[in-house]
Amino acid sequence: MKINPTIKTILDHKSIRKYTEENPSDEIVESIVKAGQQAPFAYQCYSLLLSRNRKRNPWNAPLLFTICIDLHKFERIMAKRQWKLIINDLALLLLGIQDASLMAENMVVAGRSLGLGSCFLGSAIWRAEKIAEEYKLPKRVFPLVQLVMGYPAENPPTRPRYPLEFTLFEEEYPKFEKETISRAMHQMDSGYLAQNYYRKLKAKIPLDGTRKETFTYDDYSWTEHISRKLGQWDPDPNNLLEQLTKRGFDLTRNRLKNPEDSE
Amino acid sequence: MKINPTIKTILDHKSIRKYTEENPSDEIVESIVKAGQQAPFAYQCYSLLLSRNRKRNPWNAPLLFTICIDLHKFERIMAKRQWKLIINDLALLLLGIQDASLMAENMVVAGRSLGLGSCFLGSAIWRAEKIAEEYKLPKRVFPLVQLVMGYPAENPPTRPRYPLEFTLFEEEYPKFEKETISRAMHQMDSGYLAQNYYRKLKAKIPLDGTRKETFTYDDYSWTEHISRKLGQWDPDPNNLLEQLTKRGFDLTRNRLKNPEDSE
Repeated sequence: MKINPTIKTILDHKSIRKYTEENPSDEIVESIVKAGQQAPFAYQCYSLLLSRNRKRNPWNAPLLFTICIDLHKFERIMAKRQWKLIINDLALLLLGIQDASLMAENMVVAGRSLGLGSCFLGSAIWRAEKIAEEYKLPKRVFPLVQLVMGYPAENPPTRPRYPLEFTLFEEEYPKFEKETISRAMHQMDSGYLAQNYYRKLKAKIPLDGTRKETFTYDDYSWTEHISRKLGQWDPDPNNLLEQLTKRGFDLTRNRLKNPEDSE
Repeated sequence: MKINPTIKTILDHKSIRKYTEENPSDEIVESIVKAGQQAPFAYQCYSLLLSRNRKRNPWNAPLLFTICIDLHKFERIMAKRQWKLIINDLALLLLGIQDASLMAENMVVAGRSLGLGSCFLGSAIWRAEKIAEEYKLPKRVFPLVQLVMGYPAENPPTRPRYPLEFTLFEEEYPKFEKETISRAMHQMDSGYLAQNYYRKLKAKIPLDGTRKETFTYDDYSWTEHISRKLGQWDPDPNNLLEQLTKRGFDLTRNRLKNPEDSE
């Protein structure tokens, strides 16, 4: 394994949920955002909202970034060039989420190199309408994810990841042996158990319906936790589709056949 | 602006489309992938495919990564825990693209810190079926983007980005003044023109229909180029929806109301 200061910074990553009283300077914020902007992009169709209101921010953190897919900005540019956006929203969303996430990860890494910790909040997509009201977002701007940042007041260990044999596949996707699945599960579960991760967070997810609880914090770990999320929660895409629609995104519309403006 | 080795690495980013004959060692590949894996994630629902077949890879590059959204792996894990995935595919796609892109950007930055250049290929989403055949992907694995890597045989300048005033908004999304739009356009257009970017690539996009060409490579630049893409191409989402469907993703299905397996 090759190590240099950049790779060390990347490998040291962990989510931070406690922050000191120190406020990052404007220069620090600008450095982090400019590092974000230098990420590769398809269309640069993102915007960053910033709140420095500690009272409102999660964990009273000094910085809360809300990372948005922004089609509004480019539509304004196109209007100046006498063009109208015609590409379908699904394509723009698939490419836009990538643009926005590449930027976000640069911010995480740059922040860490300057001593700041961070934590993503993935719930923004379900609260898009509320966030849009807070920040007065125009239509065609969709809040994708939030990123909390500040100086860490905790120093948790780095969390486990899948083994390489369960992540990287050369030339052909494998038919997994049962043992490969088991090893991947074991690496995640034993790793989180060794850190007492779910016990400390008291994060066990209750079972719906007729399933009977058989786990204690001695054996409840990552694969069971994620299984309970993906196996019990949110079967219906309509909540998300509605949030997208309210922000002016229509994933199934052919924009030539139905050319009326979505706004 | 704060500068350190990590931020310098991030700010130095540019896409590389010419590569030397040198092949990155296994250790280099492993270091890049492990740096990728350490990115934050919601569900780690990605996989990486690797081709070292220079003859097949774009620009005969030594490494071609194909970054996939992978629900298959977690469904295998859930089956071992006697769970069935029930969360809607749209949510998994919105979160999965983030997981995969955060990982990808770590790979780009780690690679660059080790002397490797890279370039994303965004066309994978439209060629998903073909890529799935090549790598024998099971259903529920969707190729999101490809990342070409190798040692650079060119040293282009870094490309322009929007001004900060067009990217970062504190407390409230602004009503843009016309001048703000113009400054953002000017920064992008004059930046690319100064580098002769489109002239060197001979990349002018032809005009469809009745529009008359009025641009030469003296004034054709980024905002006109992207306007022609977003204003002329791909109005119909059905091509993408079909690629997703063929890979076993259904963005509008309520998995409880229609619980039959998609495979």
